[in-house]
Amino acid sequence: MGRVTARRKASHVTSGGSVDRPETLAVEEPLELRLNGTALTVTMRTPGSDVELAQGFLLTEGVIGGRDDISRVEYCRGTGPDGTNTYNVLDVSLAPDVVMPDVDVTRNFYTTSSCGVCGKGSIDAVRTVSRHSPGDDPTVVAAVTLSMMPKKLRQAQKVFASTGGLHGAALFDANGTALVVREDIGRHNAVDKVIGWALENHRIPLTGTVLLVSGRASFELTQKAIMAGIPILAAVSAPSSLAVDLASQAGLTLVAFLRGESMNVYSRPDRVKH
Amino acid sequence: MGRVTARRKASHVTSGGSVDRPETLAVEEPLELRLNGTALTVTMRTPGSDVELAQGFLLTEGVIGGRDDISRVEYCRGTGPDGTNTYNVLDVSLAPDVVMPDVDVTRNFYTTSSCGVCGKGSIDAVRTVSRHSPGDDPTVVAAVTLSMMPKKLRQAQKVFASTGGLHGAALFDANGTALVVREDIGRHNAVDKVIGWALENHRIPLTGTVLLVSGRASFELTQKAIMAGIPILAAVSAPSSLAVDLASQAGLTLVAFLRGESMNVYSRPDRVKH
Repeated sequence: MGRVTARRKASHVTSGGSVDRPETLAVEEPLELRLNGTALTVTMRTPGSDVELAQGFLLTEGVIGGRDDISRVEYCRGTGPDGTNTYNVLDVSLAPDVVMPDVDVTRNFYTTSSCGVCGKGSIDAVRTVSRHSPGDDPTVVAAVTLSMMPKKLRQAQKVFASTGGLHGAALFDANGTALVVREDIGRHNAVDKVIGWALENHRIPLTGTVLLVSGRASFELTQKAIMAGIPILAAVSAPSSLAVDLASQAGLTLVAFLRGESMNVYSRPDRVKH
Repeated sequence: MGRVTARRKASHVTSGGSVDRPETLAVEEPLELRLNGTALTVTMRTPGSDVELAQGFLLTEGVIGGRDDISRVEYCRGTGPDGTNTYNVLDVSLAPDVVMPDVDVTRNFYTTSSCGVCGKGSIDAVRTVSRHSPGDDPTVVAAVTLSMMPKKLRQAQKVFASTGGLHGAALFDANGTALVVREDIGRHNAVDKVIGWALENHRIPLTGTVLLVSGRASFELTQKAIMAGIPILAAVSAPSSLAVDLASQAGLTLVAFLRGESMNVYSRPDRVKH
């Protein structure tokens, strides 16, 4: 759609002075997601792969279980100030037998009906809602194979190379072959696009795969991996406490600080062969 | 509160083999924010400075304009599985004359009443809601002063040093003196804590200051700077297109790729002296 990068003028300042020059930026635009015509959520995202993004979001939030739960996805006819379609509103029609979520789905995983909002409640909620459990997945991946993944992701991140401004996510098989790479200004969006791709291609649950993210491993990204049935989540940077606790209880292998030939494995290290 | 870091066992894998060792992680826990007893939003955050976080969020979302708009902030008595208070639910009571937002405030800035959700609508919404305009702020800061800020932030980020897992935000005056530094697992939370600190100390609008963030400059962080009346936002990493557009239209100076003695100034470069 040609809306992934944009050019803006900037003053480049160094100790030697200042020069004006055009800079390439990652585009950020709002995307409103509607469900059967009702506004559900708005996310700031980099345009492109919007249908994957919507489908990945709905799957990892537990609204849908597979591709058959969606009957139609289409852009609304909303227009911007110049009268053209903004392509920023996407309406997803659920199949007739799929239950509309009766609350804001983005809150489902964080709040419980009791007063005590806590990490344990968040973990329990994911485990209750998830239709897949990575715990029994027998996948094993070699440490040396994991070590090569960040470089492969970086090489495939074409927009990052020109803007320095995008998070990346990629799915690999256990041999280290990249299945799909997606980029976005939002880290959770990049993962939703990857999982939405898998949904489109009838690959849910994603048994036998490694999900690599270019940044940190948060609770939310760990939740998404589990909801998609992925057995191994690898992050270039640090994990949070709640990400480690959720991974441990769900039987997900969580690898972080994946840099060069070094990495930390916080849960289910039996899946990493060395 | 002693809940900022946690220890978990991990397998540290290198080409030479694997050793089990304890690792220090940044804590991530949900915080539910209630307004006059009604649940408003849940954010995953690093515990600590919760009251600042809540106040900064409410200010930058346009719910409150200053400290006097809040009559009381208190933790709810919600308990976790072990019966102790989770300290994860915070209830903010508004002063009697403050209008309760009648919609989910987290959506206010992204959606417009018309169908055309777009970047321009998001920018217009911030400009309509904001009580402050950085456009007239006469602050000038030397490029060499800006260049020294990232190092000062990093040195003050005690938890990042031990976990590698936290975003940082800091306020500086135009001479480069740090006024406050906050860390959080969420980049927007770190900024909300900084702005909440300023609210507590009756320093809103934050004229004459520089807000430095350890990561990228998104639309949302740019919005927060404008809502707090900050004239200069500086980011260590890349800006997005919408951040640059919002900064340009609001008269905010946006500096990004602030590394060593080099930086890009995307808007109002007259505030950077070199």
